Amino acid sequence: MVRYAAGQFCRGTDQVVLEEPLELRLVQGHEEQTVAVTMRTPGADPELALGFLYAEGAIRDQTDVLSLALWSNGEVESPNVLRIELRSGFEALRRLSRQTFTSSACGVCGTGSIERLASRSGPVRWTLPPLNPEQLRALPERLRGAQPLFSATGGLHAAGLFTAAGELLAVREDVGRHNAVDKLMGWALAHNRLPLSDHVLLVSSRAGFEIVQKAALAGIPVVCAVSAPTSLAIEVAQSFGITLAGFVRGERFNLYSAPERIGPGASEVR
Amino acid sequence: MVRYAAGQFCRGTDQVVLEEPLELRLVQGHEEQTVAVTMRTPGADPELALGFLYAEGAIRDQTDVLSLALWSNGEVESPNVLRIELRSGFEALRRLSRQTFTSSACGVCGTGSIERLASRSGPVRWTLPPLNPEQLRALPERLRGAQPLFSATGGLHAAGLFTAAGELLAVREDVGRHNAVDKLMGWALAHNRLPLSDHVLLVSSRAGFEIVQKAALAGIPVVCAVSAPTSLAIEVAQSFGITLAGFVRGERFNLYSAPERIGPGASEVR
Repeated sequence: MVRYAAGQFCRGTDQVVLEEPLELRLVQGHEEQTVAVTMRTPGADPELALGFLYAEGAIRDQTDVLSLALWSNGEVESPNVLRIELRSGFEALRRLSRQTFTSSACGVCGTGSIERLASRSGPVRWTLPPLNPEQLRALPERLRGAQPLFSATGGLHAAGLFTAAGELLAVREDVGRHNAVDKLMGWALAHNRLPLSDHVLLVSSRAGFEIVQKAALAGIPVVCAVSAPTSLAIEVAQSFGITLAGFVRGERFNLYSAPERIGPGASEVR
Repeated sequence: MVRYAAGQFCRGTDQVVLEEPLELRLVQGHEEQTVAVTMRTPGADPELALGFLYAEGAIRDQTDVLSLALWSNGEVESPNVLRIELRSGFEALRRLSRQTFTSSACGVCGTGSIERLASRSGPVRWTLPPLNPEQLRALPERLRGAQPLFSATGGLHAAGLFTAAGELLAVREDVGRHNAVDKLMGWALAHNRLPLSDHVLLVSSRAGFEIVQKAALAGIPVVCAVSAPTSLAIEVAQSFGITLAGFVRGERFNLYSAPERIGPGASEVR
């Protein structure tokens, strides 16, 4: 990771939030069916499964759960797949798989998600000289100036699309991070601006998998977040050659991938 | 809304973030099928639909969309349902409805969601004297003290479950707000503690529909958020008699519903 602070680039390290998909599979006899895939931070996964099944009305208490264990084929165990056997069996399953979310583009593991994304995403292209770091760190202020709802409510995510010269083309706000980015991408689509080569996306929040994924699909080469990136977001950014900047606040930011687009100086740091 | 600041309750007003479900229905001839329901802030809905369909691979550009309009039965128009006709028709639909998320417990409109929730949720019960406001405002600090991952990464949501005496029973962290709460509910379920009458839930983030919904299902009578609540979260809290506190920070907080559980003094404010 390359850190920018007080006008200087230096090498830094950073502990990032783990983000990995968890797949819940209901089983009955020899049949298995995926009922949900959710992006989560590994840990307390059986609790997550229980809480999720309870919230969805599939179980009432623990006695409704006959078994719950990591998926295994006898040789290999998958840390991101839980096999669950319920007393009500496939009754609950049918209800669940119709109602619950198997989150869109994410797959069973990070690698699978990235491979699937690669088959759909075009190349991310930057044809201009590197972005000035002082210009990059000034983007959040420009976004905030164009966020009428946030200043009133204090509770919205914003996504802004900038040109390489720092011009704000469009800003969208929403309770959902992913919705704000979807609105922005819909705007670009409606204006025939895709792919968004030579553009910069800024989100007022953290950068998770879904944000960088949407940027990759729209061909955006530089993604900035005011808050932290997740492990999977960094992995996707690295795979697609997207420049990912996190903690873009005040005088500083961190670069987690493709630092050569910011400069001069970011890619020469050791 | 009742505001607590500097040891005093007073009446206040607050502009809250709108949160409402948007349903996307694909149509072909006389057939219609819901492919996604997402909680969003109303505004730029056609852009949201376009961006979503693009991210899901259902469309490549605007020419793939034959029509996109608010749903109407000829007399009444629904502001939360979009009818979309695609060139590829039900081909895209089949792909989408298998892959995308039709978010769990939310329905086509807030009222529908609340009614459905009411049929599944038990009563929320508080059998103790009102909570001391000074104790309530101290909860976030107690939660932060028990958040090992956040202090390292700066990028996680936490959910904590407290007794009425302010004792922290369990804390769970996750990249997803809803996952942190699901983990906590899973913990309670595994320890046979449901329903959680006389307990307090604190989230380190905003309080959206999903948070208050999960609290209602678990029977939690007091929900606190460090950041803003959404319009639908307030509506659900009011419907179920849940005390909802937002912006619980420093010396202050706001009460959006059932202020009588905090006191003395909150419910006498005019």
